[in-house]
Amino acid sequence: MRSWPHKHIISLANFSKEDYEQLLTLADKFNSNKENRIKKIPFLEGYLVTSLFFEASTRTRNSFELAAKRLSAEVQTFNSTSSSMSKGETDIDTALTYASMGSNIIIIRHSSSNGPLKIAQKIDHKKITTSIINAGDGLNGHPSQGLLDLYTLINFFSPNKINPSVLNSKNILIVGDVLHSRVARSNILALSAFGANITLCGPEELVPYEMKNFINSTYLNQLKDPIKNRGGIRISRSLQKSISNTDAIIILRLQKERMNQNYLDCLNSYSTYYCLTLDKLKLNKKELPVLHPGPVNRDIEISSKVVDEYKNCLINKQIKNGIAIRMAMLFLTSQYQDLIQSNFNPSVKKP
Amino acid sequence: MRSWPHKHIISLANFSKEDYEQLLTLADKFNSNKENRIKKIPFLEGYLVTSLFFEASTRTRNSFELAAKRLSAEVQTFNSTSSSMSKGETDIDTALTYASMGSNIIIIRHSSSNGPLKIAQKIDHKKITTSIINAGDGLNGHPSQGLLDLYTLINFFSPNKINPSVLNSKNILIVGDVLHSRVARSNILALSAFGANITLCGPEELVPYEMKNFINSTYLNQLKDPIKNRGGIRISRSLQKSISNTDAIIILRLQKERMNQNYLDCLNSYSTYYCLTLDKLKLNKKELPVLHPGPVNRDIEISSKVVDEYKNCLINKQIKNGIAIRMAMLFLTSQYQDLIQSNFNPSVKKP
Amino acid sequence: MRSWPHKHIISLANFSKEDYEQLLTLADKFNSNKENRIKKIPFLEGYLVTSLFFEASTRTRNSFELAAKRLSAEVQTFNSTSSSMSKGETDIDTALTYASMGSNIIIIRHSSSNGPLKIAQKIDHKKITTSIINAGDGLNGHPSQGLLDLYTLINFFSPNKINPSVLNSKNILIVGDVLHSRVARSNILALSAFGANITLCGPEELVPYEMKNFINSTYLNQLKDPIKNRGGIRISRSLQKSISNTDAIIILRLQKERMNQNYLDCLNSYSTYYCLTLDKLKLNKKELPVLHPGPVNRDIEISSKVVDEYKNCLINKQIKNGIAIRMAMLFLTSQYQDLIQSNFNPSVKKP
Repeated sequence: MRSWPHKHIISLANFSKEDYEQLLTLADKFNSNKENRIKKIPFLEGYLVTSLFFEASTRTRNSFELAAKRLSAEVQTFNSTSSSMSKGETDIDTALTYASMGSNIIIIRHSSSNGPLKIAQKIDHKKITTSIINAGDGLNGHPSQGLLDLYTLINFFSPNKINPSVLNSKNILIVGDVLHSRVARSNILALSAFGANITLCGPEELVPYEMKNFINSTYLNQLKDPIKNRGGIRISRSLQKSISNTDAIIILRLQKERMNQNYLDCLNSYSTYYCLTLDKLKLNKKELPVLHPGPVNRDIEISSKVVDEYKNCLINKQIKNGIAIRMAMLFLTSQYQDLIQSNFNPSVKKP
Repeated sequence: MRSWPHKHIISLANFSKEDYEQLLTLADKFNSNKENRIKKIPFLEGYLVTSLFFEASTRTRNSFELAAKRLSAEVQTFNSTSSSMSKGETDIDTALTYASMGSNIIIIRHSSSNGPLKIAQKIDHKKITTSIINAGDGLNGHPSQGLLDLYTLINFFSPNKINPSVLNSKNILIVGDVLHSRVARSNILALSAFGANITLCGPEELVPYEMKNFINSTYLNQLKDPIKNRGGIRISRSLQKSISNTDAIIILRLQKERMNQNYLDCLNSYSTYYCLTLDKLKLNKKELPVLHPGPVNRDIEISSKVVDEYKNCLINKQIKNGIAIRMAMLFLTSQYQDLIQSNFNPSVKKP
Repeated sequence: MRSWPHKHIISLANFSKEDYEQLLTLADKFNSNKENRIKKIPFLEGYLVTSLFFEASTRTRNSFELAAKRLSAEVQTFNSTSSSMSKGETDIDTALTYASMGSNIIIIRHSSSNGPLKIAQKIDHKKITTSIINAGDGLNGHPSQGLLDLYTLINFFSPNKINPSVLNSKNILIVGDVLHSRVARSNILALSAFGANITLCGPEELVPYEMKNFINSTYLNQLKDPIKNRGGIRISRSLQKSISNTDAIIILRLQKERMNQNYLDCLNSYSTYYCLTLDKLKLNKKELPVLHPGPVNRDIEISSKVVDEYKNCLINKQIKNGIAIRMAMLFLTSQYQDLIQSNFNPSVKKP
């Protein structure tokens, strides 16, 4: 197998096509188990994985922790609520504490954009081998969600074999609170990498016109984007109009907890225009796949009927696929670590 | 072994005598270990058990989780305080999320009566194989506590062999806040099933006269009560009078957190009449067994001396027995699941 | 191996030199692993270890829990925030609950001095075999921190072999909020046992003159101090003066959460005189080892530059050593328990 080139997984902005393909192929293998009883895989035996969530999230944390346990890692949880943080410790010192305890991989959720990046840089500066995986940082990114949505869509369009090229020239509609959504940003990076065209749909307050330039922004240019021909981004204000010529829909959660009162006052009219209903879905002749990262605000951004009755509503598949994707992220990261380790102890490798 | 007939364990109202006997016999086997070091039993290997507590409870949650771990299951905890619930997700969507992660058994504590039932119905409607175990719902029921109290009393009256018929015609006194107690309701169902006569004792505010009809209520009739000859229920206002001709006492916790100020003002006089003391126990010539579901409000519903010095105060035995009872609940549920699973994959069963 | 003489580990006040040496030697063995993947040791297989933290602490709790898991114990966590405590249960009843669940070792953090001692006494009175380990009680003690600091300093002065006599006549400076620090009290007990002389340095509000008599206090005399010739204690008000003739520095955390407003108003001037900076360190010609129990208030009691750049700042080593020390504490306690157990079942021992 190709050796994985990343010590940390902080952003999808530096993922090459090969990175995506390697990770998806591996996730697909982890996902093939159809049994009621799922045997542990010993790949991370003796590894310590720490989840360091500076922002509350049971869902993503449990998914990562379950993935780590399925790979036989020891799992440690840091609760920011009952923690040293309240005693004035910085986030970086907290991370270094867990690295010093011997944590091999620290999964970080952070309220600030680039919080996990700064911690990873500090760890590298100190020549510590611990890897950082970003589980969502501010408005910046949510790589594991971007990857599991990518996997879910590829799997929908090409059920028998992981074939990312199936996304080429597909139109994918991302609806809702794009502005406050790190999920949307990771979705755009992952889907455009395989030539999908993205339409961002919502009112101007939630989908500012500047989002159109997200891919070509200085940000990506500075990072020397390893993807040559990305799909494009369009902006739409009408869900009704956009729905007719799309191939898939990703509904975002209205992040009420990140909004001020002015935004919230618009909620009522928001639902009238942008809540995905069975009626709106009928404007397209295909049985469109519908994704939502959860947790769902029923009948605000998506109707209960779509969630409960629409055949191609893939929410539960996304959750299931999330375990496999996170297993792949953890496994590839551990592989990178073992390589560092064997370079520290070269004698181990010699035959 | 007889195959267990219930996918979920939501209420004792649909338990047959055979169900009780099968579960108690199994629990008794799990309970026989006398060693300091307790070996894991591999029965739930590869199973994922999720505890989904929408109401705080460390004691019951830890007991269920320890039971699951003793059976080698993987255990996952959902904390409602640091959770998606605060992001507006419904309880049913949260449960479906964990079912989608591959949870085989979800243990639910819920502040609403029938909360777990509604989730189980939704799960069945969606043809999901996940089982639900009710760990306490509103004022409705607390099956595992009812079962462990049943087991503790049978074990007291018949120490060498599980013989539920030993309860026939025994008088059992349940004292205190029956109105707010799901434990009392599960106790009544379990004990009356084997012919025990129940006396509910307390002031009218906490033991309303209507509780006398609990067993013969429309509720049980609608469910086609599988028990033919239940013991009866009497109401008593005097602990002193009732104590002389009883065979066992269950003291309930005063659920201060469920009471309003009016109730709380009565607390002082409550203790005078209803707090179980060594003096009151002397009104009966036998060494009565005393149970309490915990946590104890010392010197409010039960005196410190009874808790600390009375030989037949069985509180610690109840806690110990709780592990074995919950292991049996989890094991029988897993057995039912394996059966479903093998029907999905019939080839597995063929010789 | 010598059999360990303590059922509980509540305080270092009753530790003999042999106790320290046995524990440090064992910890050093646990610490020798240099691999990235750390294999579990089966010494506590079948053991249940409960962490019962009545005061928030993720760092110490995670360290103890990781130590227990490395020894293959089952680990159970009690969260005081979402617990029965809020339902009026006493701390002792909570501990008895977990003992009844079969917990072999309960690790207790308590806001009251002697809280863990009282629980241990109750457990012994009830002839329960469960052991208590104190993870910090009020202003009284923090034995595991005292032991890991002892180990870290011995290891610094004698890197190749655990040789506690290396501390004899060494001068060790403890700087800061000694009054509110249980860590300082455990440090004094552990270091003076091997003949180190302690200087307590800080303003009078934080280092009252009476601390000079800590070792010779009635407290230790009553306990029949098993150490014959302890090092002495001096008081200093000037960090600058004290630093020149010391051999090691332990910086304490300013426990802002335990201080009232008057204390806090002094913080600014505190840092001017007592914050350990690179400049102050230069007043000593040696490369002094610097310890801090964490979490750090950067630039209040210790400068960021000392934490990040000073070579002999041993904070991360302390954290790493903490795992090994706690493994040794748990293992020796389990050994004591197995001995009790085999005395209960004498047939097991017969050949």
